[in-house]
Amino acid sequence: MSDSTAIQALLFDVFGTVVDWRTSVAAQLRPFLARHNIGADPYDLAHAWRRKYQPALDEIRGGRRPFVRLDVLHRENLESALADVGVDPASIPAGELDELNLVWHRLDPWPDSVPGLRRLKQRFIIAPLSNGNIRLMTDVAKRAGLPWDAILGAEVVQAYKPSHEVYQRTADVLGMRPQEICMVAAHNGDLAAARQCGFRTAFVLRATEYGPNQKTNLRAEQDWDWVVDDLETLATRLGCPA
Amino acid sequence: MSDSTAIQALLFDVFGTVVDWRTSVAAQLRPFLARHNIGADPYDLAHAWRRKYQPALDEIRGGRRPFVRLDVLHRENLESALADVGVDPASIPAGELDELNLVWHRLDPWPDSVPGLRRLKQRFIIAPLSNGNIRLMTDVAKRAGLPWDAILGAEVVQAYKPSHEVYQRTADVLGMRPQEICMVAAHNGDLAAARQCGFRTAFVLRATEYGPNQKTNLRAEQDWDWVVDDLETLATRLGCPA
Repeated sequence: MSDSTAIQALLFDVFGTVVDWRTSVAAQLRPFLARHNIGADPYDLAHAWRRKYQPALDEIRGGRRPFVRLDVLHRENLESALADVGVDPASIPAGELDELNLVWHRLDPWPDSVPGLRRLKQRFIIAPLSNGNIRLMTDVAKRAGLPWDAILGAEVVQAYKPSHEVYQRTADVLGMRPQEICMVAAHNGDLAAARQCGFRTAFVLRATEYGPNQKTNLRAEQDWDWVVDDLETLATRLGCPA
Repeated sequence: MSDSTAIQALLFDVFGTVVDWRTSVAAQLRPFLARHNIGADPYDLAHAWRRKYQPALDEIRGGRRPFVRLDVLHRENLESALADVGVDPASIPAGELDELNLVWHRLDPWPDSVPGLRRLKQRFIIAPLSNGNIRLMTDVAKRAGLPWDAILGAEVVQAYKPSHEVYQRTADVLGMRPQEICMVAAHNGDLAAARQCGFRTAFVLRATEYGPNQKTNLRAEQDWDWVVDDLETLATRLGCPA
């Protein structure tokens, strides 16, 4: 087990790590699809929407587009995701799509997230380090009861993970050396970038983030400082009492 | 009484409005002064330090200096404040001054702040809109138990109040129209700028922020939407149950 005594802050990936976006988004898409008599499976639409996520971020990470917050990208991606499942987005009133875009502000936590974060908060500064924008993260946290000490992430530093600036500028905002920060994520790529920036790393297995047939992030691909199945176990490993 | 039904977020000035910086800073300066056999009154040093605050911000608000976070300005101002009370700052080890600078991260709330904020949080998004930097605000909140939903403020938008960009960019971050936001402050000037940007306004009387002989902000200088003596009363006025 790694030594956690120097760690002052735990920064969390959120989509997939702290909240179950797939189930939450699909559950909210279902009544929308029914209302419009669209036969598409809500999980297929949720996956189609999420598949547009990394390519949209790539445009900004690659410098081909100035930073815009994730709400804007989600709204654009919704239209192309609808097209992917055979729906003409122009057939839906724009205001209804604007409202539908807010499903990402109403994501349910994994069962261990709130109790785990409550314990971790007793000893560490805890904050999201997500690509989600500040309002999105605030809405998710308020609704789900995620007890963050601050809302950090892409919008604060105007860059998207896994660009190294995100980790570096966030350490600067916190006034901490990288080794005083631990990144917590269900995604090996996020942790790899954080480690390259000097952060400590904790991998949380979320084997059904993408549903029962998930193929990726089913195991720790490096010797991360901590590897756990849930945030309550992380709290125990880091010495936070129940 | 004004109508609060359209309000979604309450944004708070912090120094003086939510926390009693003067008493907190003086209490922490006392052992430092005693240790160095400095005869200065801790309140005098606290006031001298705070007097440097607005002129330092003016350099940035006026565009003569790029944005730096308040921790940096406080550290610079500490040296000149010490000089003002007759102490050569070069006589104190730099590391000790760095540590002393963190007194601003350990400020006590007014007695009504935590219970008031807890009630207000039930109905509104609550966040600081302070000139304090993110880490400073996070440390103050964590220690004092201020239940913020997010940490907003100068560092997020890279500008200092009462520059209008602070209010305007924060409304943009929140995705809200200005009239959906209420600024809460003990300072008429902060509220005047917020109102000019279209925010609703709530004045909280803090008659001893500057001690028993305070001369400023002893009354509401405009017809602010709400005028209260403490945050519990604000919660009652805004319909938040006890």
